[in-house]
Amino acid sequence: MASARRIDETTVWEAILARHADDLGKSLSPGRVAARSIPAGGGLRYNYAAMDADDATLDLLERAATELDPVGRYRELASGAMANPGERRMVLHHQTRGTPLGPVVKDGRDYRAFYEGERERFSSFARAVRDGSATGSTGKRFERVVQIGIGGSDLGPRALCLGLEQWARENGVLGPRASFISNVDPDDANGTLAGLDPATTLFILVSKSGNTQETLANEALVKARLATVPGLDPSRHLVAVTSETSPLARNPGYRESFYIDDFIGGRYSATSAVGGVILSIALGPEAFGELLAGAAEADRLALEPSPSGNAALMDALLGVFQRNALRRPATAVLPYSQALSRFPAHLQQLDMESNGKATDRDGRALPVSTGPVLFGEPGTNGQHSFYQLLHQGTDIVPLQFIGFRRNQTGFDPAFEGSTGRAKLNANLAAQIVAFAVGKDDAEPNKRFPGGRPSSLIHGERLDPAALGALLAHFENKVMFQGFLWNLNSFDQEGVQLGKLLAGKVLDRDGSGNPVLDAYASLLGVR
Amino acid sequence: MASARRIDETTVWEAILARHADDLGKSLSPGRVAARSIPAGGGLRYNYAAMDADDATLDLLERAATELDPVGRYRELASGAMANPGERRMVLHHQTRGTPLGPVVKDGRDYRAFYEGERERFSSFARAVRDGSATGSTGKRFERVVQIGIGGSDLGPRALCLGLEQWARENGVLGPRASFISNVDPDDANGTLAGLDPATTLFILVSKSGNTQETLANEALVKARLATVPGLDPSRHLVAVTSETSPLARNPGYRESFYIDDFIGGRYSATSAVGGVILSIALGPEAFGELLAGAAEADRLALEPSPSGNAALMDALLGVFQRNALRRPATAVLPYSQALSRFPAHLQQLDMESNGKATDRDGRALPVSTGPVLFGEPGTNGQHSFYQLLHQGTDIVPLQFIGFRRNQTGFDPAFEGSTGRAKLNANLAAQIVAFAVGKDDAEPNKRFPGGRPSSLIHGERLDPAALGALLAHFENKVMFQGFLWNLNSFDQEGVQLGKLLAGKVLDRDGSGNPVLDAYASLLGVR
Repeated sequence: MASARRIDETTVWEAILARHADDLGKSLSPGRVAARSIPAGGGLRYNYAAMDADDATLDLLERAATELDPVGRYRELASGAMANPGERRMVLHHQTRGTPLGPVVKDGRDYRAFYEGERERFSSFARAVRDGSATGSTGKRFERVVQIGIGGSDLGPRALCLGLEQWARENGVLGPRASFISNVDPDDANGTLAGLDPATTLFILVSKSGNTQETLANEALVKARLATVPGLDPSRHLVAVTSETSPLARNPGYRESFYIDDFIGGRYSATSAVGGVILSIALGPEAFGELLAGAAEADRLALEPSPSGNAALMDALLGVFQRNALRRPATAVLPYSQALSRFPAHLQQLDMESNGKATDRDGRALPVSTGPVLFGEPGTNGQHSFYQLLHQGTDIVPLQFIGFRRNQTGFDPAFEGSTGRAKLNANLAAQIVAFAVGKDDAEPNKRFPGGRPSSLIHGERLDPAALGALLAHFENKVMFQGFLWNLNSFDQEGVQLGKLLAGKVLDRDGSGNPVLDAYASLLGVR
Repeated sequence: MASARRIDETTVWEAILARHADDLGKSLSPGRVAARSIPAGGGLRYNYAAMDADDATLDLLERAATELDPVGRYRELASGAMANPGERRMVLHHQTRGTPLGPVVKDGRDYRAFYEGERERFSSFARAVRDGSATGSTGKRFERVVQIGIGGSDLGPRALCLGLEQWARENGVLGPRASFISNVDPDDANGTLAGLDPATTLFILVSKSGNTQETLANEALVKARLATVPGLDPSRHLVAVTSETSPLARNPGYRESFYIDDFIGGRYSATSAVGGVILSIALGPEAFGELLAGAAEADRLALEPSPSGNAALMDALLGVFQRNALRRPATAVLPYSQALSRFPAHLQQLDMESNGKATDRDGRALPVSTGPVLFGEPGTNGQHSFYQLLHQGTDIVPLQFIGFRRNQTGFDPAFEGSTGRAKLNANLAAQIVAFAVGKDDAEPNKRFPGGRPSSLIHGERLDPAALGALLAHFENKVMFQGFLWNLNSFDQEGVQLGKLLAGKVLDRDGSGNPVLDAYASLLGVR
C-alpha cells in the first residue's frame, strides 16, 4: 500500500479546524432530515441531519477526502495490498463475505474460495448439529454451544448471537443456545459450566494463533471438567477454529477444525469462521448467509467515491471533525434495541483497538488526536443512567443512535394507548431533538443547552441482513478513519507490554522488577 | 445544608491547577506501593501508589479538603440535612445499612427503623420463597425471580446479583436464579420470558413513584403473558417495591409490597428494598446482611477527617485533580473479576447521573469540568479489546483497577505451571506497571509512553461484605466529588426533556414539532 498523506496535511485542514459547530437549534429542519440520508446496506440508512456540521464544513470534508482518496485506499486493501505493514499482512476480512473488487489470489491461493470453502464445511457441520445427526459422545443431541475465545473471538460473535437470538426464535430457526467463556478468571468458565450438561454441550475453541493464553487455560479447565463425566469423550465435544499453521490444526483433540488465516484480524473476524461456526449452529447457516449478504452490500456501498453517497465514509469524516476540530474525546453508541445490548462492547474493541494509536503508518508521531473513547448501552436503559451527563454535563459527547421500525418479537400489547415499540421509538426521536435543540428554563439546573450532535442509523427490523450491514458499516468507518489519519488500523502493538510483564510475574526465576513484585504480592501472586 | 464554596474557590486552587503529572517512571516504588494504602471496608484497601499526584499535590488537595470540609458535609447529609435541595429531599441511603451518625428522626419517623423494618419483612418473605413455603399460584416452588425495573432499579441490583451468584453457589446458598427486565423494547421482556416457566417464577416490580413508564409497560406485558397460562393467578406471582404513596402500594395486584421513600435516590438504592428483595431471595437474607455490614463499614471509614485515612475522599480528590488540573475527560473502571462484569455499568449511572452537571448548588454555571465519562469491562477481557487505546492512544485515561487474591469458585486447575487466578492477577499487576512506566522501543509503534495513572482497590475475595464496601466506596466517592464541585449529586433534571418530548410524540393531538415528527416518521411512530 503506497505511502499517503494524513488529513492534517491536506490543503483544507486549517479551514476545517477553523469551522465551528453548526447551530442545530437553527439548522435542524424536516428538510435536512430528509436530505441527509445515505443507504448503508441491509435496508439501513445513515442519517446525519443532527450532526453539527454545516454545508460549508461538509464541503471541506469532502475536499479533504478527494485529496486523500480513502476509497482508493480501500480499493487497494480489498484487492490484496499489504494494508497491515507492521505485521506484513494483507487485510482480507471483506473476502469472507464477498468480492467487492474480485477475488484476491496470491501465491496460488484464491482467498475468497478458501474462506467460502470453510464456510461450506462449517455449514454442513452446523446442519448436522442442528438436525441431530452429529451428537455428543454419549449419543445425545447438542442443546448448547459454548465458544471459548477472547477479544475478537468473543465480542463480535457474542454481540451477533445476542443480536439475533429473539429473531431466530420468532422465525423458528433457533438452534442450540449459545454461550461464551472468555475471561481467564476461572469464575467465568465455572459459572458457565454450572448451568449446562456436558453431555449435550459442544465447545468451540477459537484462537487464530493457537497460543492465546486465556483461551488455552479455559480449554484446559473445560477439558478437566469434561474428563470427570463418566463415559464422555472430550474430543467429541470440542471443535477448533484456528489457522492451518497453529498447534490446534489437524489435532485429534477436536472432532472438527475450521480455518482462518493471518489476513483476518481478530476484531474483523466476526464474518469468518470465528463468528460463522457458532452463528451457523445457533441460528442456522441460512441466517448466517443473509448476514454475510448484508455485510457485502455495505462493503459495496463503501466503494462510492463521494461521502454524500458513502455512509461509512461520511460517518468517518464527521467523526474526525468531532475529534479534531471540535475536540471531543469520547463518543457514545446508543442502540434502541435490546438485542444490540453488547454491540457497543464489540464496537469498543473495533474502534479503540484499531485507531487508538499515536503513530502514523510512516512511524511519525501523530500531531492530532485519533480514536475516541467509545462506550454505550441500549436505549431506553441509558436514558435512566448516563444520559444526565450527556444532556447537562460540561463536555459534549457526540452520539450514534441506532433504531428500527419493528421489533424482533411479536408480542407487544398496548399500554396506556401505545405499544412498547411506539414508546421506544418515541423516546429515540425525542432524545435526538432534545440533545440537538435543548430547552431554556428559568431554573439553571433545568436548562438544556442543546447543541449536542447525533447521527441515526435506522432500518425496518434487526434481521440478519441488517445486522451484517451494521457490522460492516462500522468496520468500514473505522478503516476509513485509519486512512484519514494515515495510521495502521490493523495492528495492536499496545497489547504486547502487558503480556510480557505478566509472563515475568509468572516466571519461576522472578520478574526482576521490584515494583511489579510489590503489586503481585498485594494480589497474592508470588 | 448550608451554602458552601466550590473547590475552584479555595485558596489553593491555582496552585493545584499549576501542578503537573508526577513522573511515575521515576516515582513509583515498592515503598510507595506500601505507603499509599487506605482501608476501604469489607477487607478492601484503596491503593493510589500509581496515581500521578506527587506528595506536594496530595498536600494541596488535602488543604483544599480542609477548607471545604466535605466530611462535615457528609455528616450533615447523613444526619438528615436537606442535601437534595432541587427536589427538597433528604438523602438517606446510608440509613439503609446503618447509622453512621445515629438514626435520622424527622416528623415522628425514625428512618433507620423504617428501612430496617422493611428489611425484616422482606427477609421473612425471602426465607419463605427459599424454603418453598411461599409458592406460586399453582402450588409450585419459585425457581426464578425476575426484577422489572430500570435505571437504579435495575443496574445496581443486577450488578450485585451477578457479583455474588458464583459465591452463593459455592457456599451452598444460591436460591432462585435472578433475571432482569428493564428496556421498554418488548424484545427484552419477551426474550426473558421465553426462557422461563411462569408457574415457577416470581416477578418483582420496582418503581419508587409507581409511574415509571418503561416499568409499567413491562408489567403490563408480563401480566398479559401470565394471563394466558391456565389456572395461574398473576397477583400471586408479583410483588412490588415502591413508596407508600404510590399507586402500587397496598394494591391487591401484588402479593406483597415493600417500601422505600423519596429519600433514597434510584442510583443509591441498591442497599434498600430495591436491591434487598431480589438479593435476599437469590442469595439469602444473611448474605444481604453481610453486604450491608460491608457498606456500613465503608460509610464509617468515610467519616475519617484526613484524605490519607479516608479512601473515598482520597479517590474523590484524585479524580478532581485528573479532571480539572490534568484535564482528562474520561475514566475507566477495570475489575479483574468476571463476577463484576456489570459493576462498571452501575458505576456509569452512579457517577455520570450524579455529577454530570454544569450548574452548582447555588444555580451558578460551573467554571470547571465536572463528572467524567465512565466506562469499563472486566479484565483480562478488556486487555484484548480497548486497552490498545489506553496504552498508546493520544489521550490519557485514568484507570481504576479492582482485584482479589482468591476466586469465588474453587475449581482452578494449573495450566502451563500456573492457575487461572495466578494468570489473572499477574496480568493485573503487569498492566498497572505497564501503564505507569511504559517501555521505549526503536520502532515507534512499539513504544509505550507510560505515565498513565491508575488506582487499585484490592481484597481477599469478592464476598458479600467486600461487595457492599465496594459499592459504598463509590457512592461516597461520588458524593464527595459533588461536595468538592458544590453541585447537587442527587437530582437528575437532565432526564426530563426527553420524557416530555417522547410524550408529545405519543400524544394523539400531535407533537406540534415538525423536526420531532420527521424523526418519529423515520422510525415508524405516527
